[in-house]
Parts: sequence; C-alpha cells; structure tokens
Amino acid sequence: MVASAFLPELWTEILIPVCAVVGIVFSLFQWFIVSRVKVSGDQGASSSSGGAKNGYDDYLIEEEEGVNDQSVVAKCAEIQTAISEGATSFLFTEYQYVGVFMVFFAAIIFVFLGSVEGFSTESKPCTYDSTKTCKPALATAAFSTIAFILGAVTSVLSGFLGMKIATYANARTTLEARKGVGKAFIVAFRSGAVMGFLLAASGLLVLYITINVFKIYYGDDWEGLFEAITGYGLGGSSMALFGRVGGGIYTKAADVGADLVGKIERNIPEDDPRNPAVIADNVGDNVGDIAGMGSDLFGSYAEASCAALVVASISSFGINHDFTAMCYPLLISSMGILVCLITTLFATDFFEIKAVKEIEPALKNQLIISTAIMTVGIAVVSWVGLPSSFTIFNFGTQKVVQNWQLFLCVCVGLWAGLIIGFVTEYYTSNAYSPVQDVADSCRTGAATNVIFGLALGYKSVIIPIFAIAISIFVSFSFAAMYGVAVAALGMLSTIATGLAIDAYGPISDNAGGIAEMAGMSHRIRERTDALDAAGNTTAAIGKGFAIGSAALVSLALFGAFVSRAGVHTVDVLTPKVIIGLLVGAMLPYWFSAMTMKSVGSAALKMVEEVRRQFNTIPGLMEGTAKPDYATCVKISTDASIKEMIPPGCLVMLTPLIVGFFFGVETLSGVLAGSLVSGVQIAISASNTGGAWDNAKKYIEAGVSEHAKSLGPKGSEPHKAAVIGDTIGDPLKDTSGPSLNILIKLMAVESLVFAPFFATHGGILFKYL
Amino acid sequence: MVASAFLPELWTEILIPVCAVVGIVFSLFQWFIVSRVKVSGDQGASSSSGGAKNGYDDYLIEEEEGVNDQSVVAKCAEIQTAISEGATSFLFTEYQYVGVFMVFFAAIIFVFLGSVEGFSTESKPCTYDSTKTCKPALATAAFSTIAFILGAVTSVLSGFLGMKIATYANARTTLEARKGVGKAFIVAFRSGAVMGFLLAASGLLVLYITINVFKIYYGDDWEGLFEAITGYGLGGSSMALFGRVGGGIYTKAADVGADLVGKIERNIPEDDPRNPAVIADNVGDNVGDIAGMGSDLFGSYAEASCAALVVASISSFGINHDFTAMCYPLLISSMGILVCLITTLFATDFFEIKAVKEIEPALKNQLIISTAIMTVGIAVVSWVGLPSSFTIFNFGTQKVVQNWQLFLCVCVGLWAGLIIGFVTEYYTSNAYSPVQDVADSCRTGAATNVIFGLALGYKSVIIPIFAIAISIFVSFSFAAMYGVAVAALGMLSTIATGLAIDAYGPISDNAGGIAEMAGMSHRIRERTDALDAAGNTTAAIGKGFAIGSAALVSLALFGAFVSRAGVHTVDVLTPKVIIGLLVGAMLPYWFSAMTMKSVGSAALKMVEEVRRQFNTIPGLMEGTAKPDYATCVKISTDASIKEMIPPGCLVMLTPLIVGFFFGVETLSGVLAGSLVSGVQIAISASNTGGAWDNAKKYIEAGVSEHAKSLGPKGSEPHKAAVIGDTIGDPLKDTSGPSLNILIKLMAVESLVFAPFFATHGGILFKYL
Repeated sequence: MVASAFLPELWTEILIPVCAVVGIVFSLFQWFIVSRVKVSGDQGASSSSGGAKNGYDDYLIEEEEGVNDQSVVAKCAEIQTAISEGATSFLFTEYQYVGVFMVFFAAIIFVFLGSVEGFSTESKPCTYDSTKTCKPALATAAFSTIAFILGAVTSVLSGFLGMKIATYANARTTLEARKGVGKAFIVAFRSGAVMGFLLAASGLLVLYITINVFKIYYGDDWEGLFEAITGYGLGGSSMALFGRVGGGIYTKAADVGADLVGKIERNIPEDDPRNPAVIADNVGDNVGDIAGMGSDLFGSYAEASCAALVVASISSFGINHDFTAMCYPLLISSMGILVCLITTLFATDFFEIKAVKEIEPALKNQLIISTAIMTVGIAVVSWVGLPSSFTIFNFGTQKVVQNWQLFLCVCVGLWAGLIIGFVTEYYTSNAYSPVQDVADSCRTGAATNVIFGLALGYKSVIIPIFAIAISIFVSFSFAAMYGVAVAALGMLSTIATGLAIDAYGPISDNAGGIAEMAGMSHRIRERTDALDAAGNTTAAIGKGFAIGSAALVSLALFGAFVSRAGVHTVDVLTPKVIIGLLVGAMLPYWFSAMTMKSVGSAALKMVEEVRRQFNTIPGLMEGTAKPDYATCVKISTDASIKEMIPPGCLVMLTPLIVGFFFGVETLSGVLAGSLVSGVQIAISASNTGGAWDNAKKYIEAGVSEHAKSLGPKGSEPHKAAVIGDTIGDPLKDTSGPSLNILIKLMAVESLVFAPFFATHGGILFKYL
Repeated sequence: MVASAFLPELWTEILIPVCAVVGIVFSLFQWFIVSRVKVSGDQGASSSSGGAKNGYDDYLIEEEEGVNDQSVVAKCAEIQTAISEGATSFLFTEYQYVGVFMVFFAAIIFVFLGSVEGFSTESKPCTYDSTKTCKPALATAAFSTIAFILGAVTSVLSGFLGMKIATYANARTTLEARKGVGKAFIVAFRSGAVMGFLLAASGLLVLYITINVFKIYYGDDWEGLFEAITGYGLGGSSMALFGRVGGGIYTKAADVGADLVGKIERNIPEDDPRNPAVIADNVGDNVGDIAGMGSDLFGSYAEASCAALVVASISSFGINHDFTAMCYPLLISSMGILVCLITTLFATDFFEIKAVKEIEPALKNQLIISTAIMTVGIAVVSWVGLPSSFTIFNFGTQKVVQNWQLFLCVCVGLWAGLIIGFVTEYYTSNAYSPVQDVADSCRTGAATNVIFGLALGYKSVIIPIFAIAISIFVSFSFAAMYGVAVAALGMLSTIATGLAIDAYGPISDNAGGIAEMAGMSHRIRERTDALDAAGNTTAAIGKGFAIGSAALVSLALFGAFVSRAGVHTVDVLTPKVIIGLLVGAMLPYWFSAMTMKSVGSAALKMVEEVRRQFNTIPGLMEGTAKPDYATCVKISTDASIKEMIPPGCLVMLTPLIVGFFFGVETLSGVLAGSLVSGVQIAISASNTGGAWDNAKKYIEAGVSEHAKSLGPKGSEPHKAAVIGDTIGDPLKDTSGPSLNILIKLMAVESLVFAPFFATHGGILFKYL
C-alpha cells in the first residue's frame, strides 16, 4: 500500500471551507469599498475617503465643471436603475423557462439512471472492486439528480449575483471617471473582483458541502459518491448554456440593432440616449457578458473538479480512502483563491494607475502575477496534499504517478492558460500589428477588412492549439486522464482573477454608456472608452481561457465517460467512431449557424423597431422627445428566449440521441470530433470579433499617425471598420463563447448518462 | 479458393483502353463542333451549320444590329488572344517553379523510400505472404518516383489543356450569344465537355498504361506494384495543390482588386474595359477555376483509384492475381466515361434550351441522368468484373464481401454525391429561400449580409456531412477501407459530366467579360449573365462533389496508410493520437489564414495599381485612353507565385515532419483531424461564397417583386451585396477548394512514405 498525503484529513476538512469563506469575505469587502461611491444625489462621491489609501488620494483628480452637478448624478442613478431593472426582468423570464427545463431534465436523469438496474433498491458489487458492495444505481440516480439541481441553482445564482454587482458598479465607475481614469479603473476592477471571488468561493463551498453531505449516505462507496457528484457539473454547465446563448443573443441583437440604425444610418454616437435600443444594449452587456460568462466559467470550474474527482475516485488513494489526496482538486482551488486575493491587491493597493496607457499592462500583470504565485502554490499543495506516489487507472491499465509529476500536470495547464492569454492579447489588442493591419485594410473598404479579420482569427488559433496539445501530451503522459483534469484545474485555478479582469470589461462599457446617456462631458467618455478598449482585450483573453480550459475539461470528462462506459479504445479505424468524429466536428457549425442566424433575425426586428421610432416619434432626433426603450427591451427578451431553445436542444439532446440509438463508440467519436473542431471555431470567432472591435477603436482613438490617417469617426475607413465590428458581435459574444459550453456540456452529459448508455445504449445497432 | 470474375482478363485488357480512347475521341469531336464557330473576321459564325441539328437550328436566332459587325468579332478575337496569352504565360511561370519542386520532391521520395531497406537491391519476403519474394524497397522507391512524375505531368497537362480549351471557347460563346441564349449555352457546355472527357479519359489511360508497364518488372509482386502506383496519386495531387492555390490567389487578387476600385469606387460595371485589372480578372478565371479545378479533380480521381488498388492488392483477388477483379476500380471509371457520353447527348442533342430559365434545370438534369444511368452501369460492372464473393483485409482481420455489397458501396458514394450536389444547389441558387434571405438581409447593410451568409454556409454543412457519414458507414461496414475507396470512385465515376458543368461556369463568365469589353449590346451581356448565374451554382455543386469525394478518398488513403504502416488501432484515448487530432483539426485554419491573407494582400497591391492608373492615365475614365493591362497581370502573377509557396510547404511538409519526428500514431491523428475539420470549412466556405455571389446576382437581375425591391444596381442593398460577394471570393475560390487538396494530399503523401515512417519514423519519442 502506498503512503497517504502529508496533510492530515482534519486539516483538509478545515482548510477548504476556510479558504472559501476567506474568498467570500474578501469579495464582500470589495463590495463595501465600491459601495462608498454614492449614486444618490448627495454631492457625488467618496468625500469620506479623502486621505485614505486604496487609490483614493487626490493627485489624480482633474475636477470638471459638472463634478458636483446633482442632476448628472441623479441621471446616472436613474439610468443605472433602468439597466438593472431590465437585466433583472430578463433574467427572471429566462430562469422561468430554464426552470421548466431543469425540472424536466432532472426527471430524465432520475428515470434514465434509475433504469440502469431496473430501479432496484438493493446494493450491488462495486464495478472496480467486486469484493465490496456499492450503493444501488437508484441511489446514484437520486443523488445525481440532487447534485444536478444544486449545480444548476449555484450557476443561476452566480450569473444573477454577477449581474447585480455589475449593474451596481457601472454608474459608480462613471462617477469616478469624473475624478480620473485611475479611480474609475479601480472601481470597475474591484467590482469585477467581487464577482470573481464570490463565484470561485461559492462554487468551491457548495461543492465541498455537497460532497460531505453525500458522504453521510455513501460512506465508503466513493465510486458511487463521486459518480453522483458529476451531476453538479452537468447542472452548472447546462444552465451556463442557456445563460450564454440566451444572454448572447439578447446582447448582440440589441447591440447590432442599435448600431445599424444609430451609428450607420442616423450617424449618432454609440450609446446616444436618443437611440431607442440603447438601454437594451446596456442591459445586454450585463445579461450576456456578465451573467452568461459567470455561469460559463462556474460551469468549467465545476466540471473540471468533477472530472478530476470521478477519475480520482478509482485511483489508489480513492480506493484507500485518503481524503486529503482525494480532495487535491479542491485544495488547488482553495489555494487559487488565496493567490488571487494577493494578486488583486497588486492592482488595487500596491500600484496605482496614473494614465490610460497603464491600464492594459496593469491587467496583463494580474495574469502574470497570479500565474507566478500560483506556481508556488501548486508546489505546496502537491507536496502536502498528495502521497509521494500513487496509482491511476488508465483505461484498463494502471499507471504509477509521482507527486512532482502531478505538480507538472497542473503547472502545464496553468502556464498554457497564460500563453493563450498572451497570444489572444497579441491578436486582439490594437497595440500590436495584427489589429493594426486589419485597421489598415479598412482603407480599401469593408470587404478587405472582413477578409483580413477572418484570416487573423484563423491564424490566432495556431499557438493556442499547440499550447493545448502540449498540455494534453504532458499531462496525459504523466497521469492519464487525471493529469488532463488537473491541468484543466490548473488553468482555472486563477479563475477569480480571470473573472475579475473579464467582468471589468462590460462594467466599463456600461460606464461609458451611462456617461453618454447622462450627457456628461466628452472627457469622461474618453476615459471610459480607454477603460473599455482595454476591456475588449481582456474579454478576448477571458474567452481564450474559457476555451482553453473547456478543451482540457472536456477531454478529461471524455476520458471519465469512456472509463465509466467501459470502452477501452476509441478506434478511428472503425466505422462507428469515424462517423461520430465527422458528425461531431459538424455540430459546432450547426450550432453556430443557429445562433448567428438568431442574432441576425433578432437584430433585423430591432432595426425595424428603432427605425419605426425614429420615423414616428416627433422630436426624437432633436432630443426633445424620449424614445420607447421598453419595446426594444421586450424585443430582445422575446427573441432571445425563443431563439435559445433550438441550439439548447441541439446540445442537450445530441448525446442522449447518439448514446441511446448509436451507442457509446459513436458517442465517443462525436465528443472527440466536436472537441477538436469546436475549439478552433471558438478561438477564431472570439479573436476575429475582438480584433474588429479594437480595429474600430484604434481608428476612433487616432493615437498614432497611422491611426489618424484612417480616421476620424465617419471617414470611409471608419465606416468599413464599423461594419467589421458589427459582424464580429455575434461571433465573439454569441457563437464563439457558446461553443466551449457545447463541447464541455456534451461531455459531462455523456459522463452522467454513461451507466445508462452502457446498459441500454446503441439500440439501433443492436437490432439492425 | 474463391471464384474469379466473370469477365475474362483479355476483355478487361481491351475494354479499359477502348473506353478511354472513346472518351478522347468524343472530346475531340466536341472540340471540332466548337471550332466551327469562327472568331476570325469572316462574318461571325456557323453559317455552315444552318439546318443541321445539335441545336443549331434557326428558331432561337434573334439577330441584332451588330451580328455581322466585323469589328466586334475582331475585337472579341483580340481579347481572347490577350486572355489566352496571359493565362499561358502565367501557367508557364507557375510550372517553372512547380517543376523545381517536382524534381526536388521526386528526389526526396527516392531517397526516403530507398532508405527503408538501406538501398539494398535484394528481394525480400512479402509483407503479407512471407512464402513469396517481393521486389526490394529500392525498386519501389524508383517506380514510386516514376509514378509520381507521371502523375504530376498528367495533372499539369490536364490543367493546361483545360485552360487552352476554355480560352478557345470563351469568345465563341460570346459570339453565339448574339444568336440566342440556347446557342451560347451549347457552345459553353460542349467546351466544358471537351475538358471533362479529355481529363477523365487521359487520367484513366495513363494510369492503365503505367500499371501494365510496371507489371513487366513486378510480375507477380502486386503488393509492390500497386504500392509504387500510389506515387501517381501523389504526383497528381501535389501539382493540383499548387494549381489550386496559385491559381486561386491569382484569380481572386485580380477579381477583388478589380471590383474594389471599379465597382465600388469608380462605379463602372464589371468587366468594363476601362478597368486595368479586367484582363487579369479574366485570365484568373482560366488559371484558377479551370486549370486549378482540372488538376484538383484529376488528383481526386487518381488518388481514389490508387487507394482502391493498393487496398485491393492485398485482397483475395489481389493475392490470387485475378486481374479483372483487381481492375474493378478502372472498370468503374471506364463505364463512367460511357455513361457520361450518353448523358452529354441529353444536353447537346436530345433536348434544346429555349429560354434562360431552362439552363439550370438542364444542368441539374445532367447530374440526375448520369447518376441514374451510372447506377445500372455499376451493377453491370460489379456483376461481370467481380467474383461473387472475395476477402478484404481490415487492419489485421479478414472480411468476406459479396459482389452485391460492393455494388452498394459504389452506389452509396454515387448517390451521396448527387445529394451533396442538390443540397449545394439549394443553398447557393437564387431560386431558393436561403440565398433570397441573404439578399433580403442586405436591406440592413453589409454587416447583416455577412452574418446571414456565414450562417448559411455553416448550415449548409449539415446534410452533406450526414450524406458522407452514411456513405462511410455503409461502405466501411460492407467492405472496410476498400468499400470507402470504391464509394469515392462511385462519387467520381461521373467526373466527366461533373467537370463539363463545372468548366461551363468560368467559360460563361469569360464570355460575359468579352461581351462587355468588346462593347457588345446590353442584351448579349444579359444572356451571358444568365449563363453565368447558373454557372455559379454549378461551380458550387462541382466544389461540393470535389469536397465530398475528397473526404471519402482521404479516408480510404488514410486506411491504406494505416495498413501499410502496420498500425492496427488509432486510439483517440492515447496522447499521441489526441494531440495529432487536435493539431490536424487546426491545419485547415492555418492554411486558410495563409491563403486568405495572401488574396487580401495581393488584392491591396492590385487596388493601388488600378487606382494609380485611374489617377495618372488621362482619359482612362472617359474611355479615350487604354489602361496598362500587363502591369496588373504581372502583379497577380508575381503575388500568386510568391504566396503559393508557404501554404504549399505547410501541406507538403506536415506529414513528413510529423511522421519523421512524432511517428505514425500522431500522423494518423493529424490526418483524421484535418479530414473531419477540413471538410466542414471547405463546404461552408464554398457555399457561403456561392450564396453571396448569387444574392448579388439576384438583386441585379431583379426578376421577382422581392428582388426588385432590393435593387437596382447601385442601391444601398446592392452595395451591401457587392461587399458580401467580394468577401466570398477568396472563401469560395481560394481557401475552400484548396482544402480538399490539403486533406487528400496529406493522406496520399503519408501513404507513399508509410514504409519510411514505419521504419525510421517517430524519432522524437524513440530518443526521449
């Protein structure tokens, strides 16, 4: 028997929840600081913080005429309320539909998994150790269903709270922008951190509690315990699917619709309050980019943990019941929270932003710092949390793994994430030549802009794919699928920081919108635009992380599924697998076609409504009459609710149909095919979109000689750039980011239903 | 021992070359008929054919004022000569570079394959039957090299002759258009048939002669014989790569450049003689769409035959030396020539085109008729050319196949081709709602047009992928990789008809260009435009066929490679394979990024030159001065020669690098990954481009009420449609069609080098 981990079980039991609670407390503390910026009419802001640290010193204050203008503050508060109400109302509508689905799907899980042993309530010999008895399939069905609901509810709450925080912070960022770009940055970033820490910590805490509660029933049957826990990942990810797709359609229908009429036809600025779709557009940022992304990354995190746990449950320490080693994935996440906490202080307290050009480096440093410290953190956790060597099962064969090898597995994932982040930054930031080339191609019109943009997206796939491939090779070679799962966790270990810089983007975007709508000075808008431009790049980086981790997670889930379904090889040289591979590789295209068409159709409806209002409401263009914002909000809401159902069904039903009718081999092919094909489209779509957006901003900002020669706003190259930006919207915010959920979700769903497919699957080939 | 085929060997020896010669004679006969249209100054045309059949009756003649105008005819002849000279000059330049590559690569083949047994000249025991002796690896190296050169030369000749025929036919089509749309159609279609039959027949004949000559040396060693023959496929396909990529960049750089300045900036019509890039544009159609496509389909045909032959060489009839059964793939192709011959008569003699709306159905009927007759033809060939049952080797296990099963394998490929053709037509013809929806989205500008167009392309992938998947499943289940290979041959069996309708498109396009440049009446241009619109759809159908067959061919080649390399399973659950799969799926993106960027950059150069000429040549816009066509031709030539090298290297070097350093498992993964991912991008790219082109033509033609509401030329929706069309150019004519070559070529290259990789490959893992 191999040695157990250095860290005693009791310490593990204490450390994990403590770290989670520390994360939550830190998150609340950040919220408290943000809340000191007042948006009620009392003289604006933060007079109480005068002289305090946290970046609230006075040297950045460039007070303007309107800084104490109560009506501006009141206006901001009013707009913030409108956005918040729109977002809340949409999410409640969305959750109603999703709730029905959740109940329905919970029933499917229970019935399908229960049917594996014909709803027998008797215990059975364990799969991997037939000398012991394990709990009946019916129990696993029931607990999987409970875990599914818990995962779904946590995901929904993550998204909802994220949205609440973001809508709480946007007007505050606008008001702080009156005092300087540094202060605005800090408010936006702190708000992002609130979301990041809340989500990372609560995800960990709920998972930890669930495991401990389930353990009361399961006792020594860890195989069944962690199989049931996978429901948590499925719940988290299936909610994320609807959040991403529904939110993505909402935000881009509003955005595209607003831009097409406002910017292109009427020549009014972005976020102009005369544009009837402007509130819907700002609501969209919160429900799509914030709530959707929050659910998405929570899903990734939950799935990566579940994949690692279920694979580990049949390892030597799973069989020996070494609780600390078993909890290694959770310890990594706990350490991640502490590391991100320190990292955050670098942005908020240790350094201060004094100029626009410091924003992007500050955000980039967050990535570097968190990765560097986390490397040490992983070493510590691997040393104390793992036995010096242990055995992992690899599709029938055993594999002995040293703890330093597992340390390398986690690190390779972590560092691959950083590389993907940097490559994404290179291809989407307007500080580098790729985006500048795309901007330059606008000289010859929209067509060359689109050709160059698409080519850029395709090209940006190369290095991330090599990074992912190397991570997979290293982690797979060292520790089979367990290695891949912990590599994914490594990439996600700095999720709190990742989410913070990711959420920062839409908050800044909203802040700019509020400044415009509240009629604030042009200088404030310039500051929020600078925040927003950095936000576009960080959003692309965030998406890069989400996609990279999704690839690793879904491979790990795929491996767990294959183990659980009793498949030993997935041989491309069999017809069942190759057709699965081919059809699987097609699914991301089908899915993208659906979502892009949805955005297009919803945007057309929006365009018609906005045009109608401009044509029929007298005085709207002159600013003397108010537009009817509510109708536009309703159009976005209705369209996204209606349109999220077909792509949702495609993703949720495919594994069930393929597994049930064609069996586990074909399903394995489908999963592998959708993984290898989906990753590419997801990366290229989000980078193409990000590059177009920033090419447009590059021309608008006109900082360099080159940029000036393409501008100003309204020039022919700028118009071409706006067209590219509009095309990129559904690519980068709807199809692209939804694809990582597609590949993860199909994998986790297959894993959850693996016992069912293994027993009842493949009926078409059985009876043909 | 199983029975041999019904057809005696002597008959087979006679029938195959006879069919090939019949095809060549038929091709020459068609050429003779086309040549009766005179482009020298003697009164125009075909007075000699008055009263004859072949559609030359008088009822369609709507003679116009200018029909006897000698100066118009002389002008046409002059333009035709310019186009022909430009194309010839480009192809010669291209072939010089490609020739160097060919010599270099031939040396690599000889050295690498010769090194397998250390350049030993001694015979060795056979791989599959160790009681016999087989020829040394050095002989196979030498004969593979010869076959490679033969394949390359045949491919180059196919492309070159196709171009010569097309440039011979274009002005004749224009002149016939003066007499009616039906006459013009027949000339264009006959010219396409010249190319189709010449290529199909000469490909078959060269392959047949090569086999027979090689057999003199190899004697009973069919294993070595057909292994050496695979070089033929590699030669054909590697030339096709450069033809497609070089030609594709040439044509689209000229087209995009001409359109961006001419149509968008200067508002002059397409093909206006004042546009300096107009000759380059017309040359491009011939070197890209004709020469490139000719080489491409020849490559597919050669590879499919080689894949089938090499797999068959180790079947029961290969081992028993049943020559007729062994030649089954060639018999299918021979039958295909006869079937296509009959099919062609339906278009040229049995029915006549009286109106524009009959063109598309006539071309569609060609597909249906050829498929229907070919089904009977396959039945006949399968009955007389195969033993009633035989054994195929399937990665170590044996599989007994009945002749009716193989009949079904060929048929499923043939019919899948028809389905792909129909689906492509549905998504790219402006007679159906998908293209009309895309046209409608132009109302709200270029951005929605692009979004809808991309979504259309993604969606158009679904049914073709299912069709391919079903073909693979059926043919694989019946007869392992031999089934897949003959399914590919089934899809390609009607290649003569496919090429005829495919080549018809660019000829019509050129005819329209010549009409415009020669200053002919608007009515003639309308007729050629109608021909051209049908040509866009058939071009898309042709590309659909090319891609579908490429998928089947490369799977068959992949299977042959795996057999030859001694790999028994390609298990996705091993790190070597999964990283291969992931990286392989990325290659089409890398390749597309290169080719699209190349088109974009070359187009930018072209735009600058065209602008320069408009700005510096006085009287150019007024039509009093002539533009400098030659400089534009040179820009396209230089750009395409320079830019075809990096993507060419990517495709040609990847299998060598992966096989040599990472070994056959990773290479298998790369091949499977690039196959499943490349097919999707290729289909979506070519359909998106075709749909945009026809959406534009739909608005321009203004046939329906809906189309009229979007037009006329120069309206805002039309401008948006032109942008979409321009973006689609590199997608549908450069990246998309080159991707099938990518997937086929990597597979056939791996197959040729399989003995080398099996012996010396994977050094990185060996020494790590």
